[in-house]
Amino acid sequence: MNSSYVLPDAPASLLPDAETASVNETPLQIAQRLAITFALTAAERDARGGTPKAERDALRASGLLAMSIPEAHGGLGANWRQTLDVVRTLGRADSSLGHVFGFHHLMLATVRLFGSSAQWRAWFEQTARRQWFWGNALNPLDERAVSHSHADWREFSGQKSFCSGALDSEMLIASARDAESGTLLIAAVPTGRTGISVAEDWNNIGQRQTDSGTVTLEKVRVENHEILTDPGPLSTPFACLRPLLAQLILTNVYLSIGESAFNDARHYTLHEARPWHTSGVQTTAADPYILGQYGEFWAGLEAARLLTDRAADRFDAAWTRADALTDAERGDVALAVATAKVAATEIGLTICTRMFDVAGARATHGALRLDRHWRNLRTHTLHDPLAYKLREIGEWALTQRYPTPSFYS
Amino acid sequence: MNSSYVLPDAPASLLPDAETASVNETPLQIAQRLAITFALTAAERDARGGTPKAERDALRASGLLAMSIPEAHGGLGANWRQTLDVVRTLGRADSSLGHVFGFHHLMLATVRLFGSSAQWRAWFEQTARRQWFWGNALNPLDERAVSHSHADWREFSGQKSFCSGALDSEMLIASARDAESGTLLIAAVPTGRTGISVAEDWNNIGQRQTDSGTVTLEKVRVENHEILTDPGPLSTPFACLRPLLAQLILTNVYLSIGESAFNDARHYTLHEARPWHTSGVQTTAADPYILGQYGEFWAGLEAARLLTDRAADRFDAAWTRADALTDAERGDVALAVATAKVAATEIGLTICTRMFDVAGARATHGALRLDRHWRNLRTHTLHDPLAYKLREIGEWALTQRYPTPSFYS
Amino acid sequence: MNSSYVLPDAPASLLPDAETASVNETPLQIAQRLAITFALTAAERDARGGTPKAERDALRASGLLAMSIPEAHGGLGANWRQTLDVVRTLGRADSSLGHVFGFHHLMLATVRLFGSSAQWRAWFEQTARRQWFWGNALNPLDERAVSHSHADWREFSGQKSFCSGALDSEMLIASARDAESGTLLIAAVPTGRTGISVAEDWNNIGQRQTDSGTVTLEKVRVENHEILTDPGPLSTPFACLRPLLAQLILTNVYLSIGESAFNDARHYTLHEARPWHTSGVQTTAADPYILGQYGEFWAGLEAARLLTDRAADRFDAAWTRADALTDAERGDVALAVATAKVAATEIGLTICTRMFDVAGARATHGALRLDRHWRNLRTHTLHDPLAYKLREIGEWALTQRYPTPSFYS
Amino acid sequence: MNSSYVLPDAPASLLPDAETASVNETPLQIAQRLAITFALTAAERDARGGTPKAERDALRASGLLAMSIPEAHGGLGANWRQTLDVVRTLGRADSSLGHVFGFHHLMLATVRLFGSSAQWRAWFEQTARRQWFWGNALNPLDERAVSHSHADWREFSGQKSFCSGALDSEMLIASARDAESGTLLIAAVPTGRTGISVAEDWNNIGQRQTDSGTVTLEKVRVENHEILTDPGPLSTPFACLRPLLAQLILTNVYLSIGESAFNDARHYTLHEARPWHTSGVQTTAADPYILGQYGEFWAGLEAARLLTDRAADRFDAAWTRADALTDAERGDVALAVATAKVAATEIGLTICTRMFDVAGARATHGALRLDRHWRNLRTHTLHDPLAYKLREIGEWALTQRYPTPSFYS
Repeated sequence: MNSSYVLPDAPASLLPDAETASVNETPLQIAQRLAITFALTAAERDARGGTPKAERDALRASGLLAMSIPEAHGGLGANWRQTLDVVRTLGRADSSLGHVFGFHHLMLATVRLFGSSAQWRAWFEQTARRQWFWGNALNPLDERAVSHSHADWREFSGQKSFCSGALDSEMLIASARDAESGTLLIAAVPTGRTGISVAEDWNNIGQRQTDSGTVTLEKVRVENHEILTDPGPLSTPFACLRPLLAQLILTNVYLSIGESAFNDARHYTLHEARPWHTSGVQTTAADPYILGQYGEFWAGLEAARLLTDRAADRFDAAWTRADALTDAERGDVALAVATAKVAATEIGLTICTRMFDVAGARATHGALRLDRHWRNLRTHTLHDPLAYKLREIGEWALTQRYPTPSFYS
Repeated sequence: MNSSYVLPDAPASLLPDAETASVNETPLQIAQRLAITFALTAAERDARGGTPKAERDALRASGLLAMSIPEAHGGLGANWRQTLDVVRTLGRADSSLGHVFGFHHLMLATVRLFGSSAQWRAWFEQTARRQWFWGNALNPLDERAVSHSHADWREFSGQKSFCSGALDSEMLIASARDAESGTLLIAAVPTGRTGISVAEDWNNIGQRQTDSGTVTLEKVRVENHEILTDPGPLSTPFACLRPLLAQLILTNVYLSIGESAFNDARHYTLHEARPWHTSGVQTTAADPYILGQYGEFWAGLEAARLLTDRAADRFDAAWTRADALTDAERGDVALAVATAKVAATEIGLTICTRMFDVAGARATHGALRLDRHWRNLRTHTLHDPLAYKLREIGEWALTQRYPTPSFYS
Repeated sequence: MNSSYVLPDAPASLLPDAETASVNETPLQIAQRLAITFALTAAERDARGGTPKAERDALRASGLLAMSIPEAHGGLGANWRQTLDVVRTLGRADSSLGHVFGFHHLMLATVRLFGSSAQWRAWFEQTARRQWFWGNALNPLDERAVSHSHADWREFSGQKSFCSGALDSEMLIASARDAESGTLLIAAVPTGRTGISVAEDWNNIGQRQTDSGTVTLEKVRVENHEILTDPGPLSTPFACLRPLLAQLILTNVYLSIGESAFNDARHYTLHEARPWHTSGVQTTAADPYILGQYGEFWAGLEAARLLTDRAADRFDAAWTRADALTDAERGDVALAVATAKVAATEIGLTICTRMFDVAGARATHGALRLDRHWRNLRTHTLHDPLAYKLREIGEWALTQRYPTPSFYS
Repeated sequence: MNSSYVLPDAPASLLPDAETASVNETPLQIAQRLAITFALTAAERDARGGTPKAERDALRASGLLAMSIPEAHGGLGANWRQTLDVVRTLGRADSSLGHVFGFHHLMLATVRLFGSSAQWRAWFEQTARRQWFWGNALNPLDERAVSHSHADWREFSGQKSFCSGALDSEMLIASARDAESGTLLIAAVPTGRTGISVAEDWNNIGQRQTDSGTVTLEKVRVENHEILTDPGPLSTPFACLRPLLAQLILTNVYLSIGESAFNDARHYTLHEARPWHTSGVQTTAADPYILGQYGEFWAGLEAARLLTDRAADRFDAAWTRADALTDAERGDVALAVATAKVAATEIGLTICTRMFDVAGARATHGALRLDRHWRNLRTHTLHDPLAYKLREIGEWALTQRYPTPSFYS
């Protein structure tokens, strides 16, 4: 049993038993238990790609899909810091699972933030009761899907790319542009509805079990009450928290990949690598350059962890403010999230590449698939360009102008 | 009046009045008020070097020299996080003053940690009552001072280098090696005692008003009750907090220099620099490369701030544990401090050098002395090698071995 | 037809025709022609792994396996700079082929440098006449193979790992430690000799068609005249050029990977990527951050190219000196090679990771296998630790001490 | 006598005698001899600022001011590579002197490239005969100077900033905008002409003896034949070599500063620094981190040296082409120069800051003024923004578009 999917360096006595669920487990403990199991097959499933059906069903059975739903609506009532800790825990075991789990909760937050209370209450309760998994078909940069208006419904037609978690989902958040006004319409619809087809066409160098492929909408009938127009997308400072949650989930997944790469590196340095023949030391753990490299890894991870957790705490505080949230308060969250994302990206890419310098040549054996950390992170960190994130932070730092809310900021 | 010595980007309405002290000022407010005045002459005093007598007297008059002393002993009863915030506030105005102010409190902590309660109570009370300034003559790497034993006193003879704040101090922490056993003896003695001479020989590229010169001890009579032997230097985990406080003060000074350089850069970018003729933009604040550079500055400062504040909080928690503090708890503080120090050093050096790329060529005018940020930081960051700090962190990260306590770890 | 395997940005008119060999082709032109074909299947063969039989046979048929052999002995008489240019050209198309082609010539150089003129003349002539491919079974860090002495022959038994190019080779350079003295014995033997088995067990994250697997020697009879003892391994400054050639081949392969990644990035930036929605520009080629990133790539590649070519020129000069070569002259080559290797490694890793930031998310599509550049480079750059290469350079820079000759320096 | 101003690590036997000039000295040997003397007072003159009159006169007496002038016109007939080697040699001793010496030759090149053969022949011959020193008053970004047309002369009035080497010069290259057309007019005029006043107002953190202050033109009469209109500024590819020479001189000065900082660091590491108490080594020269740092310094310097020398060679080749030079050939020089400049800037800033990490705390002593390397480089590298130089290189790398000629590209 490997403690590294639980917490970095947690003492063995704190480890949950992978086999047995106890009655009083916290969500984090449940996640830790699942993570141990998921990690065992992560390399193999990276090779295979496709849908991690067994793991998704384990998540359904675990109750964690209702984690962010308030207790009043049948959920576990976790705050976002707690939910993101679970994203990170799952991500350390398998970043694809951390990703789709996080995006499931992002979809729930989307109905909460863009929809009316009548809408989100119903969906929250059904999700909690039926252990629904939500998937993504929103991609605002993919403009191919259009919507035509009918009496009390709308037709959605066209395609959406990068639809993470759409396969094997019960519900989808889908978007289309109104054919006349160009307004972005966002709806929550059952994945099984007539006209929706989810392609098994995701084949990427990383995040291989996220099913981030194409969703095709062919004359899909969307009822007006399924469309999130009250208050609607990015309509208020509170509604504008949605992209920040998306960015914060990404940040936690990036961080989890860096942590996972660090843990794997450590294992190989301590147990497999040999000291260099001119080093004058007897073990790799005494090599000055290897120690220095681990010092840089750790300092970078610690910074990213603090920034990420602060961003989550600020996000929770803003979430609690609800409709009272101001632009400036929202802006402060945006900056905290952006800064954390930059830090998690940079240290993650460093560790995923440099881990081999300290883990030794054996760590490149194909069967270990340790390159998957780099592949997963590199794929996911292209969601939106880091250079523009730094620019936003710089605008704040120089001129105190908050990032302009968009689906990426 | 310049807000940047108060808080980065504090709204003008929050600014204390530089002229008038209000009755109910907090220590931080007092420091902010002093900082505004100190900043006005920082460049000029950097040119001059020597002792900042007026500023040291203003610190005496402010009551802040009793800041870290418990209220029961006549002080302000601040915790270390608060005291370090004042170090940082003063350091943003003038890093020499931040340094000697911090080291004054380090000397007080030294008697608290290495001495008996009878010893530190008396010195604390006198310090609070008489507004004493303590200076440093401890340098453990300078082995020139030796001690010979007499009936109920000891003779200290020899020299000590890098004695920050010894000039214009009322009390000194001085050390010498026992001539026979080689044991390090540390004593608190009045600076004015016969045989002690403090040279005005500090002439360095940076930290020019710290008076970090030579103290000569010529047959100085040190009473046995002035020697800190109960429990003695680095004798318990609690006593071993002393070097961590030293490192944490350094860290806060480094961070204050980075923040000050950032603030100055910002001023010149916004008010003096011109956009490059091929940039296609009208103002420097719209230049993509300048914005990107500020984004990197800010992300780095934010990380260093969080790490530094976490280290202070951990330090306060450990301080409260007193004699119950364990090696492992002390080790956790050591790691937090080391990590913060690495981060503050790296981002500080980056900002102090790269600030000119964004502030423009005019910022190199000699009268501004903006190079002092780099000179101050570069000088101070050589206190002990960063490479070995990273090595310690790396040892923990790889093998979970805590740093071995010493006067530098 | 893709010019990028020929020369970076060569005008189309200079391109060789991939189909037809002309009579008067130079070796470089031959290589350019082959490279165009090899590149077409490089991604597919990366997926497949195993032996690139067709490509190896094309190299045999091309005459390039005799490239470094003097004309007097039936070869093309190329110098090392020319031979390494071909390594780089092939490496841009497929770094596995660049690797095994370079190592083939390293094996020839090994018999030249460690063997007697009677030995190398014979092998050179046969290699040129019969288009032999030489493979590697020398790995000096793998101590498992031992040798026992008999009348006029020796028995070699044991295993060697990382035997690049041993599969599908006609000749092998194999090594074993003398069972009694521990002396390293190096021999040239036909791969088909009884007792030699070459496993198809190479499965790595990169350099997947180098067949760098295990060679097992079971009581292999090695004639005394097949053993390279006159002058023997690393016995003279001239013989000590062997590891420098190995390092220089690695350097050229690293550089070729960086160049290939750069070329692929450029294609995707220009033809597939879209400008970011807040960039304010119409094409990715006008994005300031993308242009800045390409500037860094190019500046780094240019430095690595100059350093690598200088090292080759110095190597050629040293080669010409033959037995007159001094330790200091050899040392100067060693430093030039080490410096080039550091530069090629660093810029290569940067480009292989950062190429995706400028090439866009589509470049991570699995079918393109553009991650192979990073996988290939990361695998190959672990041959020996970069930190120790920097240390050697640093020793020279600080103390003017030349690197101590070994199989890695 | 310090060899480091001659060549990095030249054996003592190669050192020229600082005192005695031999009859057959090459220009480089003359420069090496002068450099040894200049270096002795460089720190002191950095403190003083102002005009290095004695050193300027020594340069006059040396004959080196005629170095780049063809022999047919009384000069030494050196090519640019040779002239730039002297810039670098002088710059290693004192970067202010390297700067004004280089700019003197830049002014000569300006009349050659922008003027008619009647113009430059006369000025070349007088310069060689009378050992004139030329100064700069051209600054094209300072638009304050205007010109009015009269019969056969023009009036120049206004101010120019950053006029390096104008004080104590015999001739000036001055510019003004035509009051009507806005055309940039460039003239060569005696510094002593009525109406020209050169302020002693240069006070900067670095390059303190370059006299880069203000030139005021008050109704200065400039004869038409003193104005460089045939072919005129930047009028042909050949004329467009002028800014490239300026950039190449900057590059050589930057490199010389990096080399000088490296040499000083080495001295302190070897002779003054002590190994860290936990390093386990007896000398700083055995410290793994110090060696690694020197490895990075050296690798960076070597790359910058190769790039800089290649740029000089390309520049010489282009210079020889004269009016036959094409845009593309000029573009290739521009790229080589830009790449060298980026490399020299980056490694220089690194060494000037990091040198203290390896040289130890004593190297920050004020009297040594070793911070001047950083101050000199930082000041000079702001001549034009590095980010835009990288952008130009990136444009070439991505789209094969050459930099647009201007006074900075």
